[in-house]
Amino acid sequence: MTAQHRDYKTYNEATLPGYLVGLPAVVQRLGGEPGHWRIREVGDGNLNLVFLVHGPAGGVAVKQALPYVRLVGESWPLPLSRIHYEYLALTEQARHVPGRVPEVYHHDESLALLVMELLEPHIILRRGMIQAIRYPCLVGHISEFLARTWFFTSDLFLGAADKKAGIARFIGNTAMARISEDLIFTEPYYPAPNNRWTSPQLDDETRRVRGDRELKIAVSELKLAFMGNAQALIHGDLHTGSIMVCDGDTRVIDPEFAGYGPMGFDLGAVLANLLLNYFSQDGHAGPGDSREDYQEWVLAQVVAVWQGVAWRLRRLWNEQHRGDAYPAALFGDDPLAREAAQTRFLAALFADALGFTGAKMIRRLLGLAHNIDLEWIEDPDRRASCERRGLRLGRELMVQRQRLGSIHEVAAAARELRRRVG
Amino acid sequence: MTAQHRDYKTYNEATLPGYLVGLPAVVQRLGGEPGHWRIREVGDGNLNLVFLVHGPAGGVAVKQALPYVRLVGESWPLPLSRIHYEYLALTEQARHVPGRVPEVYHHDESLALLVMELLEPHIILRRGMIQAIRYPCLVGHISEFLARTWFFTSDLFLGAADKKAGIARFIGNTAMARISEDLIFTEPYYPAPNNRWTSPQLDDETRRVRGDRELKIAVSELKLAFMGNAQALIHGDLHTGSIMVCDGDTRVIDPEFAGYGPMGFDLGAVLANLLLNYFSQDGHAGPGDSREDYQEWVLAQVVAVWQGVAWRLRRLWNEQHRGDAYPAALFGDDPLAREAAQTRFLAALFADALGFTGAKMIRRLLGLAHNIDLEWIEDPDRRASCERRGLRLGRELMVQRQRLGSIHEVAAAARELRRRVG
Repeated sequence: MTAQHRDYKTYNEATLPGYLVGLPAVVQRLGGEPGHWRIREVGDGNLNLVFLVHGPAGGVAVKQALPYVRLVGESWPLPLSRIHYEYLALTEQARHVPGRVPEVYHHDESLALLVMELLEPHIILRRGMIQAIRYPCLVGHISEFLARTWFFTSDLFLGAADKKAGIARFIGNTAMARISEDLIFTEPYYPAPNNRWTSPQLDDETRRVRGDRELKIAVSELKLAFMGNAQALIHGDLHTGSIMVCDGDTRVIDPEFAGYGPMGFDLGAVLANLLLNYFSQDGHAGPGDSREDYQEWVLAQVVAVWQGVAWRLRRLWNEQHRGDAYPAALFGDDPLAREAAQTRFLAALFADALGFTGAKMIRRLLGLAHNIDLEWIEDPDRRASCERRGLRLGRELMVQRQRLGSIHEVAAAARELRRRVG
Repeated sequence: MTAQHRDYKTYNEATLPGYLVGLPAVVQRLGGEPGHWRIREVGDGNLNLVFLVHGPAGGVAVKQALPYVRLVGESWPLPLSRIHYEYLALTEQARHVPGRVPEVYHHDESLALLVMELLEPHIILRRGMIQAIRYPCLVGHISEFLARTWFFTSDLFLGAADKKAGIARFIGNTAMARISEDLIFTEPYYPAPNNRWTSPQLDDETRRVRGDRELKIAVSELKLAFMGNAQALIHGDLHTGSIMVCDGDTRVIDPEFAGYGPMGFDLGAVLANLLLNYFSQDGHAGPGDSREDYQEWVLAQVVAVWQGVAWRLRRLWNEQHRGDAYPAALFGDDPLAREAAQTRFLAALFADALGFTGAKMIRRLLGLAHNIDLEWIEDPDRRASCERRGLRLGRELMVQRQRLGSIHEVAAAARELRRRVG
């Protein structure tokens, strides 16, 4: 434990009110007496304590980091500083996409604790999608979140020195980056002890992945880009469990993996988790519960997220560019050159994003952390069939990332795998 | 002036001995009394004071930063901190390629001053090449310098957190990066007041460059890579004026532009300055002084530097890899996959390097800082003819960087331009 966290201690449902009562803004928001506050610990993630606190007047959410990975235990230590980076990211994101992240009421660095807006009646997007619920605002909100947080922290908007100051603010978040480096880009491709998969059904696939030279090279190139290409401030863990939704609202939570990295890493997380849900629906469908229409809705979101990000980036670039990249001195009076530059920039982003999509699909099928979209399919044969299709698509996206020309090809490949692969 | 440099004052030939006499190691190296030291200020670069000091027993070189760009004057301020970064780079480079950089005897951060090994009888490589002198050790030494300084500061050798600590050490050197961003990647492509070119002979070429959409996009993509791709510790200004040579020895000096960036940026500087010298020889040749053989020697060095860098990187990768990129867990037992990964890595580096080569040729022909290889050609028509060939090659290298498959094509294109373009 570092000097910053000398006074660190963890709270529980009984001790938390004694802390919150010292925060006037929080007391006012909750209303009433501490004795009347209802507190429930709900941290179903892998890393932290999360308390939902309700008072007579309103509620707050409290998130506190533990000095180890909750999913694994004290044998896997993890620095408390991640809450500091989450706080930095939430405040920066709030500046660029107001209303798309929970409001922060209080940050206590020494306790590694945040008091935030309670999101009600939101649920985790992944859970909604398992129930085949459609969210008409999702794509607009998420592509807005992505395009704006990237653009305003990139060389398209910032001067080079300001951009580097941003990189420097987040560069210490190495322990979290390390988790991504290991769990996404490394472990699924060799017999790491953390790996899990549906066995014996997918033993063959697993072996094939580990012996696949093209795939190992592709994932290592993506890892290198993740480690070295500080393109913009990225969320760093933007799967469907980091998105909360309700009718008309979408919030992006949990940016504790935030740092400067390739834009495609965030987009890949979104696309991968949509595609995994697409394949998982065949495990949830039953008599009188066809999921075919929903699956087409999911694929339409895959297409629309990419298209939404692409046109928003173009619009931001046209209207708000003032960075040192593609400088106004060269492009200000030459809109055709700017258009062509954007087309090439977006093509590179698309290839990156497809590669990261594939990597994030495979890590959820063969690595440590799996998705409930698939885990909740009880029959292992049925689950393995869904997962096999995901593995095949993930592999193609990674290896072919520079040759796939359109997002429609990705959707078509997913449909084709559902037809062809049992 | 920052707090660090509160006590800063510049020295001259008369006042410097009073400072040096306080440094016992320097006094011992020089020998004799301060009154016997001969001091000559020789800073012919663009930025600093450089003193050569000789005593009865030996000599030292003293470099002191000025708080502005010497070439331009006090109207262009530049932070003294660059000597701090030069010191960091020299000590780091010395660890990876002992003997290829001048030894540092003393670093005074508050005075922005370094006392270093006096390189005798070395001369600046550029001056030797203008005289058509061959340096048989040059390619081996320079490709060793490049491959080793890159490799040992890259994700191929370092763990991700150590690599990021390296990035953080140099990330504040933004004022020097800014000079590169402006002078290399921006100003030559619009009518910036700093630009100079051989006029009116090259007025047409200059106009064409500024209206060339493909070229503006290419240079902006390279600029983006320069600003964002922290691949390894790079020298940052490795032209033939930053290399000192004598029979059997080669030293790389002046790394005040050092920082983490794309490897191809350094290699591009070397190749660009060799190619500019190649074209310039036609302006120095005369009756009884054919430069044809020397020009072929220069092209052979272009080929050999790339080949030397490529095989050294492969060898280092095979023998000393222990970084988080291309991890041993995936590639340790699979030499064929490692070979294939290296081939792709080197292909990407080659494309990068060609792009930076082109950018660095054009900036020396149309931007602020020119090369004496060409400046010393007195007849402007003759000079313009050499420069035109350089411009054409630079343009092709940038725009075609991803399509040129071999360094021999580059050499052939240079020969072809000499034949075809007047």
